[in-house]
Amino acid sequence: MLMDRLITQIIELQSPIVVGLDPRLSQIPGVIKDEIFSNQGKTPAAVADIFYCFNQAIIDHIYDLVPAVKPQIALYEQLGIPGIDCYLKTIEYAKSKGLLVIGDVKRGDIASTAEAYSHGHIGMVDIEGISHKIFDEDFITVNPYMGHDSVEPYLADCEHYGKGIFVLVKTSNPGSADIQDMLVTGKGSAQAFPIYHHVGNLVSEWGKGLVGEHGFSAVGAVVGATHPEEGRVLRERMPHTFFLVPGYGAQGGTAKDLQGMFNKDRLGIIVNSSRGITGAFQLAAYKSYGETNFAEAARAAVIDMRKDLMP
Amino acid sequence: MLMDRLITQIIELQSPIVVGLDPRLSQIPGVIKDEIFSNQGKTPAAVADIFYCFNQAIIDHIYDLVPAVKPQIALYEQLGIPGIDCYLKTIEYAKSKGLLVIGDVKRGDIASTAEAYSHGHIGMVDIEGISHKIFDEDFITVNPYMGHDSVEPYLADCEHYGKGIFVLVKTSNPGSADIQDMLVTGKGSAQAFPIYHHVGNLVSEWGKGLVGEHGFSAVGAVVGATHPEEGRVLRERMPHTFFLVPGYGAQGGTAKDLQGMFNKDRLGIIVNSSRGITGAFQLAAYKSYGETNFAEAARAAVIDMRKDLMP
Repeated sequence: MLMDRLITQIIELQSPIVVGLDPRLSQIPGVIKDEIFSNQGKTPAAVADIFYCFNQAIIDHIYDLVPAVKPQIALYEQLGIPGIDCYLKTIEYAKSKGLLVIGDVKRGDIASTAEAYSHGHIGMVDIEGISHKIFDEDFITVNPYMGHDSVEPYLADCEHYGKGIFVLVKTSNPGSADIQDMLVTGKGSAQAFPIYHHVGNLVSEWGKGLVGEHGFSAVGAVVGATHPEEGRVLRERMPHTFFLVPGYGAQGGTAKDLQGMFNKDRLGIIVNSSRGITGAFQLAAYKSYGETNFAEAARAAVIDMRKDLMP
Repeated sequence: MLMDRLITQIIELQSPIVVGLDPRLSQIPGVIKDEIFSNQGKTPAAVADIFYCFNQAIIDHIYDLVPAVKPQIALYEQLGIPGIDCYLKTIEYAKSKGLLVIGDVKRGDIASTAEAYSHGHIGMVDIEGISHKIFDEDFITVNPYMGHDSVEPYLADCEHYGKGIFVLVKTSNPGSADIQDMLVTGKGSAQAFPIYHHVGNLVSEWGKGLVGEHGFSAVGAVVGATHPEEGRVLRERMPHTFFLVPGYGAQGGTAKDLQGMFNKDRLGIIVNSSRGITGAFQLAAYKSYGETNFAEAARAAVIDMRKDLMP
């Protein structure tokens, strides 16, 4: 199953890193934008072509250093059809280079609807007896607010197709406190605990039947790098749950903040960086590469991130 | 603003009804499927064409009876590009008939990502100074699990473009209890209350600056018909919040269950029915219409639903 393959590649590459492919025009060099805009005009289709060129160059320069990429579908979806086409082509290109793909889609809906999302993204869509792969990400992210029946269709596809999901538990953003940190009291428990512990319990439970050879379930959790203490506690409470960790770098999380999320084998997390890698050429530390060498700057940023995480 | 227009149309038509456009092959008559499949084969593009034909026929037969339709994007997204194309064409066709469109997308992500979703769905996407409308739904549904900064980008677009959102508060599905019903204790409050009350408070707060001429905010809430008592309490607690109510009909909610969600002016909710209308021809009550007259059966089901809700 793919969670096993992800962990094997993390070990082999000594690189618990996923590169977030969240393209934004303001973070793409003029050398890519100018020609496409002047040929096609300032259209959504032109932007989608720009994003794909950019993603290909990034992938070409990092595929041997990391196990996975994580395209954020919102950045593509906002462009409509050409954007979705770019998202699909990016998945395909990343896979052709041996990368695993985590689709950051954060879908969440009632069971009959979740089934459609699941079949489209990680399963197969049946059309009167003929099965079609549509998005075919290896993993997707899932929102748990609607509860167990909104997650079960994904579990079925994880089992059937060897795929995986990462369920939001404690997210990296400031607003994560609004709901996730509220203190709840469980049945028969005197002690109050935050709602994200409760969600963590649910995620562990949902993943029980899907534990692989490395001891981790196909059902992972999203735990923000910006919450080191919470991450440490969740690692203890969820020993069989792999964490997808956003919030490193641009959002403020540091390698030190992540220490408690590793287990004793120094496994258990894959850390996302988006702007910190794909936009490295704009950062002081990598400015000397120049705009033209944005992809080499991204490669250097991955190498530095790996040193930072695995000293 | 469009929440005002929605409420005005509900009053004029005496019809607090939104028809859910959640097409599924098993609920579409052979008369539509057979020809398209035999011409195109059993492909995602063929299914998208079938969905669009079906939606057009439904819209043609209900547009003068209800203020709005609600396409569920998952059913389209699962087909990839042809599905998204069908979703876009369905929005456009519904609008051409004077209907408002609630895009049931349930997106939820950190601020910079939520901004992309918001611009793409209810705002405009800026491409180096040129603004593009992409999906252009009138309203969308939003997931609150990530907190205030994940919702704020939508508020800005609601204000700027007169659009609206419906934030998940208490959903209609059985699993809604898993997280939404957990009892929390607030700051300085001795009494425990369910998390969905807390989310309701947040939604009221987020919508404060966007109240329109009917006394309701552009920021609405999703409250399931399957929870009559919870709905009654939320109506009292959220007097300025319009409710989008799923769960009527196929999911088990009845007109009686909805009584407490109306305010004293018999306003405050719009009730969704999907299968109960679009699949009426398959129900015992409307079987006499025959498969060929599926759209007439849908029309009859809307008329009966209106009588049921507004006796």
